[in-house]
Amino acid sequence: MPPIQQTRLYQEIHEQPRVISSLVAAPQPQIKALAKRIRAEGIRHVFIAARGTSDNAGRYAKYLLGAHNQLVVSLAAPSLFTVYQQPPDLTGSLVLGISQSGKSPDIVSVIKEGRRQGALTAAITNTPNSDLGSAAEFVIDLCAGEERSLAATKTYSAQLISLALLSEALNPSPARHQEISLLADRIPETFRDEERIQTLAERFRYMTHCVVIGRGFNYATAFEFSLKLKELTYSIAEPYSSADFLHGPVALVDRGFPIFIFAPHGKMIPEMNALIKTVQSREAEIVLLSDHQALFDLADHAVTLPTDVPEWLSPITAIIPAQLFAMYLAHARGYDVDNPRGLNKVTETW
Amino acid sequence: MPPIQQTRLYQEIHEQPRVISSLVAAPQPQIKALAKRIRAEGIRHVFIAARGTSDNAGRYAKYLLGAHNQLVVSLAAPSLFTVYQQPPDLTGSLVLGISQSGKSPDIVSVIKEGRRQGALTAAITNTPNSDLGSAAEFVIDLCAGEERSLAATKTYSAQLISLALLSEALNPSPARHQEISLLADRIPETFRDEERIQTLAERFRYMTHCVVIGRGFNYATAFEFSLKLKELTYSIAEPYSSADFLHGPVALVDRGFPIFIFAPHGKMIPEMNALIKTVQSREAEIVLLSDHQALFDLADHAVTLPTDVPEWLSPITAIIPAQLFAMYLAHARGYDVDNPRGLNKVTETW
Repeated sequence: MPPIQQTRLYQEIHEQPRVISSLVAAPQPQIKALAKRIRAEGIRHVFIAARGTSDNAGRYAKYLLGAHNQLVVSLAAPSLFTVYQQPPDLTGSLVLGISQSGKSPDIVSVIKEGRRQGALTAAITNTPNSDLGSAAEFVIDLCAGEERSLAATKTYSAQLISLALLSEALNPSPARHQEISLLADRIPETFRDEERIQTLAERFRYMTHCVVIGRGFNYATAFEFSLKLKELTYSIAEPYSSADFLHGPVALVDRGFPIFIFAPHGKMIPEMNALIKTVQSREAEIVLLSDHQALFDLADHAVTLPTDVPEWLSPITAIIPAQLFAMYLAHARGYDVDNPRGLNKVTETW
Repeated sequence: MPPIQQTRLYQEIHEQPRVISSLVAAPQPQIKALAKRIRAEGIRHVFIAARGTSDNAGRYAKYLLGAHNQLVVSLAAPSLFTVYQQPPDLTGSLVLGISQSGKSPDIVSVIKEGRRQGALTAAITNTPNSDLGSAAEFVIDLCAGEERSLAATKTYSAQLISLALLSEALNPSPARHQEISLLADRIPETFRDEERIQTLAERFRYMTHCVVIGRGFNYATAFEFSLKLKELTYSIAEPYSSADFLHGPVALVDRGFPIFIFAPHGKMIPEMNALIKTVQSREAEIVLLSDHQALFDLADHAVTLPTDVPEWLSPITAIIPAQLFAMYLAHARGYDVDNPRGLNKVTETW
C-alpha cells in the first residue's frame, strides 16, 4: 500500500483550498447569465437531476435556493424519464443537471427532456464538453481539474460553492457576497485537526455501522459523509436529519452506538443540543463536528470546524474534515482509497 | 411476552384487507373535489410535507403523480418553515400534508404557510379533526380506524391507496379504475406466505445490518421496509434505488451481505435482474420479494407477491409481506413489537 500522502484521494482532498479560492475569485459570467434568465423568465421551480455525490449537492441546493431565493426545488426521479418514459411537465421550471463527469446517461436524459419541453436547462459539471454539458443551455464549469480518485471530494465542494454563487447572483446581497469572499480564507483551517482526525479514525477501525446526523443546510453534509464512509470504508453509515431520526430510527441507539453529528453554529444549535442529550442518555458514542464550544463537553470526541463561517456556507467547511476522517479510516483498515472495490468513476445507470 | 397474534401490530397488519377494500369501495367525494380544484387551477406542482412512514407515502406520490399525472412533486424541507422561517414561494402549488396523527407541528406549519400564501392545501390523515385536518382546505380521511401500534402499517397502505385514488381522479381512465377495484381482492393473497415469512425471519435473528433495494414505484417500498426494520428490530437497514446503490454503496457488498430486493413485474424487471446478478457475483445473501418467477432462481430466498397487480399499485401489495417479516423478526428477537424502545406515536419535531 502506498503512503497515504501519495494517493490521488489525499491529493484531491488537499487541493480544495486552491479549487475553492479560484472559483470564488473567478468572474463567473455563466452563473450571472443563468441567474438573469431565471429572473427574466419568472422561474419559481428548480428540478435537479443528479446521482451519488452530486445528488447531495442537490440536497444543499434545496435548502439554499429555498431559504435565500424562495425557489421550490425538486430532486428528480430519473427513472420517470428513462425506464418509465413518463416524465412530468417541466415547462416553466429550471432543469438543472449536476454531474462531475457529465456522462451519466439518466441525468443527460432529464436535461434533454427539459429542453424538448422548452424549459430552461443548465448543467453544473467538471467536464463542460461532456454529453451533459452539450445538452444544457447553460454550463457552469467547476474548474476543479481532473478528478481521478473514485470517491468525489473536490468536485463536491466545488459544486456547493457554485450553487452558493448562483444563489447570491439571484438575490444579490453585499453581506452574502462578502461572506463568500471570506470563505476561501477559512478552507485551510479545515485541515488544522488533520492529525487528530487520523488518530481518531484508528478508534473506529472495527466499526461496522453508524448513523450520521445533520439538518437544514447540513442535511446534505450528513448524506455526503455517509456516502464517503460507505464508498471508502465499507462501514454501513446512514444519514438522517435529526427530526427524521426521532421519528423511528432513534430506536436503534443503545450503549456505544456510534453517531456522527454535524453542528456548526447557527439556527440548528438548539435542535442539535437536544438531540445530543437524547442520544447521550442512551449512551451512544458521539463524534461532534462543530465550531460551537458549548456543545463540545457533551460529545465523546470533537472535531473543530473553522469559526466565522455562516451557517449557509458551513456545508463547504464541514465536509472537508469528514472526507479526511473517511480517508484515514479506510487507510487504517488497509484499503486502497483510490480504488474502492466494485466502483467505476462513471456509473452508467438508466 | 404475549403471543404475537395478540399484539396490536399483528392485528393492525391483518386489518389491511378490510381497510383497503373499504377505501376502494367508498365514494370519496373529497378526493374527487380536490382533483377537480387541482385541474381548475391548472396546478402542475405538488409540495408534500410528511415525516417517517408518511414521507414514504410521499415518495410513492412523487412517482405516481409524475408518471400518471405529469405533476412535479417536491418533498418539503420542513426546517425551512420552522427553524429557518424562510419558506419557499408556494403560490400555484398544491401543498399536501400527509400524517397519520395530524399532530406533527412541523407538518402543520407547512400547510399553514401554504394557506397563508394562498396556495391550495390538502391533508391525508387518519385523524381529520387534528391540527393538520383543521389547517388544510381539503381533508382526505384514511378511515383506517385508530392505529395503536407505534409502527404504522395500515395507515401506510391506506395512504398509498388514497394517493392512487387521487391520481385516478385527476386523469380518469377506465383501465386504471378497474385495476384499483381489483386490487382489494388481491390483498388477502399477501398473507399466503405468512408462515414461510415467519420461518425465514428466524434465519435473520442475528442480522445486524442489511440493504433494501427498490426502484421507481417501489422506491417507497424500500424506504418503508427499512423503516419498519429499524423501528421494530433495531437492525440497521438502508434503502436504495438500484441506480443509487450502484453509484457507490455497492462497495459494501461482500460474502453473505444481506440484501432485500423488491421486484414486482413491470418495467423495472430488467434492471432488477441485472442488479441481482451483480450482487450475486459478490456472494450477497438475497431475499427477493417478487411475483416474477424467472427471478426466483437467482435469489437465496423468495417471498411471493400476488400476481395480476399492476406495477403502479404493487407498492401496496409488496409492503404487507415486508411488514410481516419485520414483525416476525422483532418477535424472534424477543422484542415488544407494540412498544419499540424510545418511540412515541406522535413525534413532535419542529
